[in-house]
Amino acid sequence: MDLDFIKKLAKPSSTKMMLLVLDGVGGLPGNNGDRTELETAHTPNLDILAEQGKCGLHKPVDVGITPGSGPAHLSLFGYDPVKYQVGRGVLSALGIDFDLTLKDVAARGNFCTVDDKGKVTDRRAGRISTEKNKELCDILRKIELPNTKLFIETVKEHRFLLVLRNENLSGEISDTDPQVVDKEPLEPEAKSAKAEKTAELVFEFIRQAREKLSDQNPANMVLLRGFSKRPDWPSMKEIFKLNAAAIATYPMYRGVAKLVGMEALKTGKTVEEEFETLEKKWKDYDYFYLHIKSTDSAGEDGDFQRKVRVIEEADKQIPRILDLVPDVLIVTGDHSTPSFIGSHSWHPVPVIVWSKFCLSDKVNSFGERACMTGGLGPQFPGVDLMPLVMANALRLEKFGA
Amino acid sequence: MDLDFIKKLAKPSSTKMMLLVLDGVGGLPGNNGDRTELETAHTPNLDILAEQGKCGLHKPVDVGITPGSGPAHLSLFGYDPVKYQVGRGVLSALGIDFDLTLKDVAARGNFCTVDDKGKVTDRRAGRISTEKNKELCDILRKIELPNTKLFIETVKEHRFLLVLRNENLSGEISDTDPQVVDKEPLEPEAKSAKAEKTAELVFEFIRQAREKLSDQNPANMVLLRGFSKRPDWPSMKEIFKLNAAAIATYPMYRGVAKLVGMEALKTGKTVEEEFETLEKKWKDYDYFYLHIKSTDSAGEDGDFQRKVRVIEEADKQIPRILDLVPDVLIVTGDHSTPSFIGSHSWHPVPVIVWSKFCLSDKVNSFGERACMTGGLGPQFPGVDLMPLVMANALRLEKFGA
Repeated sequence: MDLDFIKKLAKPSSTKMMLLVLDGVGGLPGNNGDRTELETAHTPNLDILAEQGKCGLHKPVDVGITPGSGPAHLSLFGYDPVKYQVGRGVLSALGIDFDLTLKDVAARGNFCTVDDKGKVTDRRAGRISTEKNKELCDILRKIELPNTKLFIETVKEHRFLLVLRNENLSGEISDTDPQVVDKEPLEPEAKSAKAEKTAELVFEFIRQAREKLSDQNPANMVLLRGFSKRPDWPSMKEIFKLNAAAIATYPMYRGVAKLVGMEALKTGKTVEEEFETLEKKWKDYDYFYLHIKSTDSAGEDGDFQRKVRVIEEADKQIPRILDLVPDVLIVTGDHSTPSFIGSHSWHPVPVIVWSKFCLSDKVNSFGERACMTGGLGPQFPGVDLMPLVMANALRLEKFGA
Repeated sequence: MDLDFIKKLAKPSSTKMMLLVLDGVGGLPGNNGDRTELETAHTPNLDILAEQGKCGLHKPVDVGITPGSGPAHLSLFGYDPVKYQVGRGVLSALGIDFDLTLKDVAARGNFCTVDDKGKVTDRRAGRISTEKNKELCDILRKIELPNTKLFIETVKEHRFLLVLRNENLSGEISDTDPQVVDKEPLEPEAKSAKAEKTAELVFEFIRQAREKLSDQNPANMVLLRGFSKRPDWPSMKEIFKLNAAAIATYPMYRGVAKLVGMEALKTGKTVEEEFETLEKKWKDYDYFYLHIKSTDSAGEDGDFQRKVRVIEEADKQIPRILDLVPDVLIVTGDHSTPSFIGSHSWHPVPVIVWSKFCLSDKVNSFGERACMTGGLGPQFPGVDLMPLVMANALRLEKFGA
């Protein structure tokens, strides 16, 4: 749905909305048996919500499309992820809690190995340790660029973040990573006239980086890709007229939430601490997004039983949400991560929409197959969830007379 | 679906189609029990249609969007209500059976009260009686505008309709209603160059109205909003190649039908009389739209039991339709009006598509939850109904070879 359309209808209210995201909750049966992780888990609280609520499965991007975490979350927040795209450099910055300004250009960096002819022999420099990465970042920080502030941040192993800050920079710069070995790193090229100044700065950065790393081994060069600027999108406050808060232990999810203008609340490292934050801040915001990461991690690790257990632990937190008396509660995942596959997948994601006005369907348990017969349908657009939340919170004006 | 696309495929035929609209039929369980109004009602005839037909729920505009009657009906007639929008002035005219020409500009008028500094103290002049309104309209009719025909029509209480008729008028005029008290009425402003002449005429109308109403109390001024012209849309005849007739007791619904080129048949004030009209005119048209208002009125009044009763009364009329042997019969609402909410709502609307070729699903009763499992899906676009009707009437050519 077009955000300009919904913006005209959205109105403020005192109702409270809550989006609980069990990251990668959708799954597949494992090698033993016919039930998915969610269908296997004992989830008495989620089952009651499913019985009282309206269920279905949402497609985060489109049929057959496996989304990354960024697009998957944008969809849940009501932003069409095909229209609202985030560059990889920006995603890297979000992933380490780096606060990008609208002036910044960010890029993903790899430390790599080049031979004496300058050709790449290892794009990841043998996956150097994070400790070594930090030493190398200290070296790169000595690079000086004219009138431009430079940030170099360690991500993990061979990966780092590069941020340039100056007026009139552009993210329209081609990657320098050739993606294969036995080739020289590519020149950074301006994809448009307004990016020429930025391309020169990146060129100069690379020149100095090559010089300063030349005596290092194996990480004696850098590769850069995903140049991008923080997008300047309309905020959830502007569109939906609400004060939204994000509770997430991982910086990546706080970062995506901040891109749409949510306030990222300070919280701890555990699910328990996330729920404490929710309870403490409940009165201060209209809309809460709470993110549970461990479902996805278990799926990525291919650990069916662990994914079952973390779903069961999440289930135990549901009464704490209900005690806060939300007007609308949504439980879903941002995408599926079947442990049988061991990575994100394209499968539509089970969802419960629970409110006084939802009109419950006949679904009485929270699982992939149960949700297929629900009132929201077996694969409806995830981006439609937000208008539905707003409607159930009585926060949308009538369209036309 | 794009009307230009369907227009290329539509062909004339001798088949007959009937759309029965139970206004606002979709509902919610009330405070007592788990059944909606439609699920509570004893509807043996509708249940047989559901059993023989294909069922589902349609979304009139989009997920979460509560439609007004105008957009909701346009969707049923196959016109995307976001693309085909009608101004509020035009809707007011439709609502009192005023036949707008393509030259006219219409606006909603309020009689209001202003103080001696000209500031609005009551936007509705204490909701004066309709009788008083008629007296004031007589006064306003004495206003003279250069070369322009003026129509002033009482709507109800403080509301009236203003229509200007002249060549080259434009509806792109800003509202004069400040929407709040303690402010002067706004000046009517042209939103585009071609609206300047119209803005001058409106300005002059307001000047004379202020003068002529100055000795009135409390209704001593007017506020105008929703300036608009009757849209010049392709008719159902042009698009679908059929002769369509509307049977409705309320002017508003006849008006919307006329906007898409239907003939609004003369009928009485009761459902009984509407069906008599249907029977009498059956041989003269290809497509009939018959509108039953009382389901919506009961929902708006929050009267669950009355809504149940009017659904049961409508059910009794179904055999009369079947006796006419339609090729395609659609039973649905334009939108939901749950008595639990007491107003239009965003909930998808139950629908039966009945024809010899529909391929019945397993739904065997007409209700919200039953229709969720139907062959049309739990929330398909309402605007898709018309192509489906046409297909079932064997009135669409094959697309491509």
